[in-house]
Amino acid sequence: MHTDLVAALDIGGTKIAGALVAGDGGLLARAQRPTPARAEGGAVMAAVGEVLDELAASPEWPRAGAVGIGSAGPVDAKAGTVSPVNIPGWRDYPLVSGVREHVGGLPVTLVGDGVAMTAAEHWQGAARGRAGALCMVVSTGVGGGLVLGGRLHPGPTGNAGHIGHISVDLDGDPCPCGGRGCVERIASGPNIARRALEAGWRPAADGDTSAAAVAAAARDGDPVAAASFGRAARALAAGIAATATLVEIEIAVIGGGVANAGDVLFAPLREALDEFATLSFVRGLEVAPAQMGTDAGLVGAAAACWEQLGAGA
Amino acid sequence: MHTDLVAALDIGGTKIAGALVAGDGGLLARAQRPTPARAEGGAVMAAVGEVLDELAASPEWPRAGAVGIGSAGPVDAKAGTVSPVNIPGWRDYPLVSGVREHVGGLPVTLVGDGVAMTAAEHWQGAARGRAGALCMVVSTGVGGGLVLGGRLHPGPTGNAGHIGHISVDLDGDPCPCGGRGCVERIASGPNIARRALEAGWRPAADGDTSAAAVAAAARDGDPVAAASFGRAARALAAGIAATATLVEIEIAVIGGGVANAGDVLFAPLREALDEFATLSFVRGLEVAPAQMGTDAGLVGAAAACWEQLGAGA
Repeated sequence: MHTDLVAALDIGGTKIAGALVAGDGGLLARAQRPTPARAEGGAVMAAVGEVLDELAASPEWPRAGAVGIGSAGPVDAKAGTVSPVNIPGWRDYPLVSGVREHVGGLPVTLVGDGVAMTAAEHWQGAARGRAGALCMVVSTGVGGGLVLGGRLHPGPTGNAGHIGHISVDLDGDPCPCGGRGCVERIASGPNIARRALEAGWRPAADGDTSAAAVAAAARDGDPVAAASFGRAARALAAGIAATATLVEIEIAVIGGGVANAGDVLFAPLREALDEFATLSFVRGLEVAPAQMGTDAGLVGAAAACWEQLGAGA
Repeated sequence: MHTDLVAALDIGGTKIAGALVAGDGGLLARAQRPTPARAEGGAVMAAVGEVLDELAASPEWPRAGAVGIGSAGPVDAKAGTVSPVNIPGWRDYPLVSGVREHVGGLPVTLVGDGVAMTAAEHWQGAARGRAGALCMVVSTGVGGGLVLGGRLHPGPTGNAGHIGHISVDLDGDPCPCGGRGCVERIASGPNIARRALEAGWRPAADGDTSAAAVAAAARDGDPVAAASFGRAARALAAGIAATATLVEIEIAVIGGGVANAGDVLFAPLREALDEFATLSFVRGLEVAPAQMGTDAGLVGAAAACWEQLGAGA
């Protein structure tokens, strides 16, 4: 099928965003609702329906030929269901069939949010033109997605690239996922802040104990704050190097709030990559900040939809 | 191109093996030379030439339409060169052009030995019919390869699946590769034996301190020997779980001498996988012993050749 307009949904624990995405990546209409994350599943689905209805009111809607969904994971693209960790009312929830019915039977594709972000960076961002890439979001959690052989690699269930939950420390701290020493357990924003506080870092007068505040302290020369970012950087480097060693990638693209720390994160990250990415075919791996900003989820959900339906924009 | 017979080479630090591989996987002719691993590059290439000459003397040789090489790595399939760690005379050695000239210009494909073994297991072994698989050799080293989307994934340089050199212990022991806490540094046969000896295990009267001897002791109830295998199993499980979490696979296939330990390895491995493979889409990952035996490298080099040339058997 061919469609030059896709209705995109970006579903997270905080908000449900929607847009009509044109073939050039422009957003022709937008809609958004807060996610009723503690409500039962039907109420969350009703919010999705409201977003779709608002998009359907756009004069452009009749041109939309498909719906692309990027959702907090895990998702199951095979079954068309989602079980987002932070939306407990949705467990194996039949999101794809629910959306398809709501939009009169249009084709619907589903990928995880890390895969959607990757599709956006590959289409128009820092991974453009790359045959192999890992794109990551380092924020409250750590997510990601892969480009292999010049194409998005969502994996059979739409979850591939889940770098936040690979273990880089097999004796490390237990992770809420059930594992141990996961990249997210070491490198997420809350864990950077927690580790700094445990090691004696104290916030400024404003009381801000976010990772951004730790980054500001590190930039001002606080060694404890810098060490917490250094530890996160090592975990990210080990995970990125593992990915490159396993599947061969040219570039790792890093977005999300923690990446806003800039050199406080990227300098020790590049240094640690030299230590962990040792084999000839992974040496010299590029690392770059993400470029797509807050619309990456929507643009990427549309890009993944086009790629999966085999239709050019 | 289409060829129903491939001349396959399996190049390692100990021997250079060759065979004519038929479209059903049967070996119609064989040749072998010891690898002059400490000689200069030309002498190693001369041994490869002797293997090819012996194959060319077979009455079947005229039907061979291509050469497939699986080589100890790292390889560089893009450049057609190899730099096997254990053949120091070959550094960026132009193996592909050398072989091509020797065989009168037939097409030549090159992959790493872990990729070749994976091609064999996917074609006729334990990964047959699987859309996603990690195949590993756990022996003096730890190598591997990947099947993704139902196809071999050699990666652009032919090295993908190098699971032995991903770090699962970012604070761990330095690895000869330059990294730290690599799967191979923990799970290879020599490291299993070293760790058992360091922890107080003593060999039987025959003085055998191999990993096989440690496995025998573990089977007889020696807790120190069992603990060393348990540690190796945890490292393998963390690496396998990381791979599944990154690219989605259905099965991990394990061959090589250490896998001959059977339940001494596989029982703690399956237990540790339950700990590390936690997300919904990786839970229940299968683990199985390899099936292809000592000819896997030759059969796989041919299979990879067919797959890369886009020719059916």
